[in-house]
Amino acid sequence: MRNVYLDHIAATPLHPLVLEAMLPYLKENFGNPQSLHSAGQKALVGIEEAREKVASLIHADPAEILFTSCASESNNFAVKGLALAQREKKNHLVLSAVEHQSVLHSAKNLEKLGFKTTLVPVDKYGLIDPEDVRKALTKETALVSVMLASSEVGTIEPVREIALLCRGQNVLIHTDAVAAVGSIPVDVKELGVDVLSLAADQFYGPKGSAALFLRKGTRIIPFIDGGIQEGGRRAGTENVAGIVGLGRAAEIAREELQKRMGKLRLLRDRLMTELPQKVDHTFLTGHPEKRLPHHASFAVEFIEGEGMLLFLDMKGISVSSGSACTSRALKASHVLLAMGLDHALAQGSLVFSLIEETSGADIDYLLGEFPPIIDRLRKMSPLYTKYLEEKGK
Amino acid sequence: MRNVYLDHIAATPLHPLVLEAMLPYLKENFGNPQSLHSAGQKALVGIEEAREKVASLIHADPAEILFTSCASESNNFAVKGLALAQREKKNHLVLSAVEHQSVLHSAKNLEKLGFKTTLVPVDKYGLIDPEDVRKALTKETALVSVMLASSEVGTIEPVREIALLCRGQNVLIHTDAVAAVGSIPVDVKELGVDVLSLAADQFYGPKGSAALFLRKGTRIIPFIDGGIQEGGRRAGTENVAGIVGLGRAAEIAREELQKRMGKLRLLRDRLMTELPQKVDHTFLTGHPEKRLPHHASFAVEFIEGEGMLLFLDMKGISVSSGSACTSRALKASHVLLAMGLDHALAQGSLVFSLIEETSGADIDYLLGEFPPIIDRLRKMSPLYTKYLEEKGK
Repeated sequence: MRNVYLDHIAATPLHPLVLEAMLPYLKENFGNPQSLHSAGQKALVGIEEAREKVASLIHADPAEILFTSCASESNNFAVKGLALAQREKKNHLVLSAVEHQSVLHSAKNLEKLGFKTTLVPVDKYGLIDPEDVRKALTKETALVSVMLASSEVGTIEPVREIALLCRGQNVLIHTDAVAAVGSIPVDVKELGVDVLSLAADQFYGPKGSAALFLRKGTRIIPFIDGGIQEGGRRAGTENVAGIVGLGRAAEIAREELQKRMGKLRLLRDRLMTELPQKVDHTFLTGHPEKRLPHHASFAVEFIEGEGMLLFLDMKGISVSSGSACTSRALKASHVLLAMGLDHALAQGSLVFSLIEETSGADIDYLLGEFPPIIDRLRKMSPLYTKYLEEKGK
Repeated sequence: MRNVYLDHIAATPLHPLVLEAMLPYLKENFGNPQSLHSAGQKALVGIEEAREKVASLIHADPAEILFTSCASESNNFAVKGLALAQREKKNHLVLSAVEHQSVLHSAKNLEKLGFKTTLVPVDKYGLIDPEDVRKALTKETALVSVMLASSEVGTIEPVREIALLCRGQNVLIHTDAVAAVGSIPVDVKELGVDVLSLAADQFYGPKGSAALFLRKGTRIIPFIDGGIQEGGRRAGTENVAGIVGLGRAAEIAREELQKRMGKLRLLRDRLMTELPQKVDHTFLTGHPEKRLPHHASFAVEFIEGEGMLLFLDMKGISVSSGSACTSRALKASHVLLAMGLDHALAQGSLVFSLIEETSGADIDYLLGEFPPIIDRLRKMSPLYTKYLEEKGK
């Protein structure tokens, strides 16, 4: 059976050159980067080279990069760290309704410490209107957090415009760019954000390795307290191999980005056009143009995402029905609900996210296997039976 | 030049069998464990097998193991998570004065939220007297945190006795067992602790992979908020390869522990006896018997640890002058000061911590190279000159 992995948003495979870069740090260069002896120095050099590479990918200064253990840690660190640093003066947070759980739940916990949160709505494409952010800002606003691109619906948000108006009102802005960095060009200078989260496993780097861009001079309260690693802002022995892998993945992404985007966009466009033609009652979710180039997401009427996912899996095709972080909760996605999809339709969501290795033959295979699966599932669906009955009347 | 790595407490090399176990998860098994498709399931199986192995090493139930990214995260999670879970009822923490910075600084931050901390002293060996813990407990005490073994002076603390009296007074107890797990037998049932921190890089596992034992039924507030990983208690995409590595390292530790301990104790004992014979004004730090079997630490009068460390490094010998987490701060260790060493002597600290590969020839080499280095450094030391002058009078 063919193996077709179309679940970039959950995890990308490790690039062979990334693994190659990591191996010396899993073998001979095993020192602790904080150790003053040569064994430690070698590890330290690996980390600092990685810092330069990550900085270079997003046009930051190496001193503005802090390494963390995952996207969720980066988001927790950003939201909690920036809010708590301003606690004496400001106590209001502005988030979009479609943020990742790690942003939303961080804010929820800050509410216990006296913070208030305003959720900015999105339109039917999942787009935030900067004007809505402007309306939400008050003199108490400490932080705005809006994602750069949605892993669930692919929509790319107008972060630059939002950052501009935040700057005008002296409000810090964080962007969760986890789904974006390595997949589309990201320039922190151009975006104008103060803080940005990114993760290696979204661009062919290792799991367990992520980073936070923190603009020079931005005050943050450390999240993990302890030693003096990362300039005293993130304690804990560094995951050296993971960091080196992140650096190498960033370097490859910088070199390959345009090529990757061009190739994947072509394949994705075919999927976006042909899938709804082959399967009726199938709607694109997210913005038709302002979206990640490797990302096609749909809501398929009358059936549940998990069913489609498992049937596709039996054909060797790996896809998501939404965020992996909440997949086992089997709830309708808060992102789709915020976009105005009704509960039943939101349950029928399916995300195809292409990886570097995806080929035209993979898309052919998917387009061939998908319609009979949907037929079969719909035949079992009481919702579909009801629809047919009503239509027949 | 010979290469002699005696800095176990900063980092251990990765066991070749651990790397072998990790590699499939850095290659073909790259799925996200939360994904519902087969690619995700394979990763999930890796994680759950690792959970069983870690549990087995410390005689816990697999459901009592939560994976984290480093020892510092485990300590932050434990101290903050247990304190915050009891915030409505209790607001007092009892820590030993020799805890790791990640414990001490976590408590410092809790003080900003209204918690009070009592530091329990240690004796000249770095030993905590359970009676002092008992005296420190009040009706408000939410948590006691005492380490199981000190990485800086090797002393093994009477955690079992302390846990017993905590239980009697309905107070939760956390032990930072990072320096102990994998190096000495650790049984959470026998110890009677509620929460325990451990880290893979202390027993030939990978950096960036650690765990928290959380006794069933113990309420904790999540540290990283977001998705539903780790039963909703630790969000973030799992570092699958790192976790698998931790599991394999735990399995090997369980099998090899007695052999490792026996071998290293013999070599360490030689070092502990012969080093002070070869170099005068050299004192063992920590307890002479109740100590980690691979650990020998000294205070060398009239010179600074960093100088010895760098000169030893030039001879290919890697050692620590204290905790790697604060090595670059170049301050006297809070542990040695708490043990009553004066500032000057505390600056002269040196930790030799043996690894599995350490041989008798390594110890010979160290014992040969060390005395001339000390001679040379003392000749440059104003403190030593002064001492000689005063002695001459």
